[in-house]
Amino acid sequence: MINSRYDVLGIGNAIVDVIARAEDDFLIRHDMHKGRMALIDEARAQAIYAAMGSAVEVSGGSAANTIVGVAGFGARAAFVGKVKDDPLGKVFRHDIRAAGVDFETKHATSGPSTARCYVIVTPDGERTLNTYLGAAQDLRPDDVVAEQVAAAGIIYLEGYLWDPPQAKEAFRKAATIAHGAGRQVALTLSDAFCVDRYREEFLDLIRKGTVDIVFANERELHSLYQTADFDTALKLLREDARLAVVTRSEKGCVVVTHERVETVPANPVERVVDATGAGDLFAAGFLYGLARGTDHCKAAQLGALAAAEVIQHIGARPEVSLKELAEQNGLPV
Amino acid sequence: MINSRYDVLGIGNAIVDVIARAEDDFLIRHDMHKGRMALIDEARAQAIYAAMGSAVEVSGGSAANTIVGVAGFGARAAFVGKVKDDPLGKVFRHDIRAAGVDFETKHATSGPSTARCYVIVTPDGERTLNTYLGAAQDLRPDDVVAEQVAAAGIIYLEGYLWDPPQAKEAFRKAATIAHGAGRQVALTLSDAFCVDRYREEFLDLIRKGTVDIVFANERELHSLYQTADFDTALKLLREDARLAVVTRSEKGCVVVTHERVETVPANPVERVVDATGAGDLFAAGFLYGLARGTDHCKAAQLGALAAAEVIQHIGARPEVSLKELAEQNGLPV
Repeated sequence: MINSRYDVLGIGNAIVDVIARAEDDFLIRHDMHKGRMALIDEARAQAIYAAMGSAVEVSGGSAANTIVGVAGFGARAAFVGKVKDDPLGKVFRHDIRAAGVDFETKHATSGPSTARCYVIVTPDGERTLNTYLGAAQDLRPDDVVAEQVAAAGIIYLEGYLWDPPQAKEAFRKAATIAHGAGRQVALTLSDAFCVDRYREEFLDLIRKGTVDIVFANERELHSLYQTADFDTALKLLREDARLAVVTRSEKGCVVVTHERVETVPANPVERVVDATGAGDLFAAGFLYGLARGTDHCKAAQLGALAAAEVIQHIGARPEVSLKELAEQNGLPV
Repeated sequence: MINSRYDVLGIGNAIVDVIARAEDDFLIRHDMHKGRMALIDEARAQAIYAAMGSAVEVSGGSAANTIVGVAGFGARAAFVGKVKDDPLGKVFRHDIRAAGVDFETKHATSGPSTARCYVIVTPDGERTLNTYLGAAQDLRPDDVVAEQVAAAGIIYLEGYLWDPPQAKEAFRKAATIAHGAGRQVALTLSDAFCVDRYREEFLDLIRKGTVDIVFANERELHSLYQTADFDTALKLLREDARLAVVTRSEKGCVVVTHERVETVPANPVERVVDATGAGDLFAAGFLYGLARGTDHCKAAQLGALAAAEVIQHIGARPEVSLKELAEQNGLPV
């Protein structure tokens, strides 16, 4: 295996989040399912924006958040995703590059506008997502540059890529290149309903070894194996996956391999302000640890640390240096 | 005096904040003076954006923040300010209306784009402002609707309105209408360097009774009377102003009239994340108290409460219901 130019390269939907607070009844009135990501069209996007409260605009996108987190720990990171050359596209590009991430994917010059996710944060800190995919729908295999993928120690892919029509081909192309170069491939299952849409394909990716590392939260795990029993689902995941991490909110996480099951606690926080990005930033810390050769337990601690940071403020991008945060918390890498 | 349709009506520059963190040396490298508001042109705006880190976009504008705060306490509020009909202008309009504020000023359809303020937040939480006034420069006396101004118990004006060429005429028009209707006029001095630019005019407004209520922080007060001695400056302010409040960051505030000087402590906060909006939200609480007939001391406590909320997160708009916050803190109005 040659040296890697990047510790981690992520591929995902390039999205700007539009975040507002609302009471639970807002979700009911607008037919939203709490904690879930729904795909919406432009008309519904406009209707939701008109109804929602005063908002904050901040770059988002699940894998993009993770990659920004990886860079925040001090690692070398790159991102592949599609924006349009419009004001929000410029915001996305500015922000991810400003975070130290290489982002070279060609933008669209015509077609739908840059993707937006209307995030409703309820008083309990839970977030409900409404995604207008827009320009992100046009991510194609051509956008995956073989040389760049082969130069990354780990490539990280989001399950949400199964939604845009051609992105899954970009995903498969990247995985093939990565394995050809002796690299590792990681996948996040993204969302329980996303798993619901693509269960057989995701299981296939895991069982056939197209992905080496799986990230899931409890709900996604239950959806994947269609069982409400955690232990049953976890046992099945251990059989299927080489390495997997299941996050359980305040209960911490479980790291599983064929051989072992390790539990790592969550970092306590005073108040969850906005849960958006918790899973994304957990993955950032874990991937950073793996890329730098820590054991799984320490990698999970780094993940818990980053997740705790991001849920204490609005937005899914860290507001402090994760590198310094890790040092302050006795987790230098 | 007829009943008022609005508790408070604010007139100010309609601005979207673009907020990023940076170390102190960023300010030095880019020739910025810490804690100061600088007016910049479009070229400098682009250069600063290119250099600054990953950012958050959130509606701002000093008087606009105050008015959103006033509405957040549950009061009836209106705002007058100029945006363009572009994406950021739509964000501004959406956010202020979503906060429950009446905002009917006609947008510009041509000319410069909606105003932006590039906010650099240093590790101590201090904010350094770089304002591209854009469309806000085109606020004119015509934008002040006599009937609306006359229907507001208090009108609130920002000193920053002295920067756009015709806004001060809008300001004077509004003050005349308000006094004609038996209403009160409040002014914030906005910024020590703003005071430096318009010292004689501001003193004239205060001494001639064009404004009844003055908001200033310590630096602005020192600039107004060109003295480094707080007590000397405060004595002069007491002679000139009918009612004035001087905010002193963690030292709380001083409320002065010809007859009395009252000191109200600040609300302690664990960590100042972003000082943007501290003065604006203090004014919101104080104005809300006045509008609802509380004494000056309780009004200042409401101000301190709102200021403490806004400095504990990124952005100058409150993230929680100020009405509920006031109730939780034993300050129902």
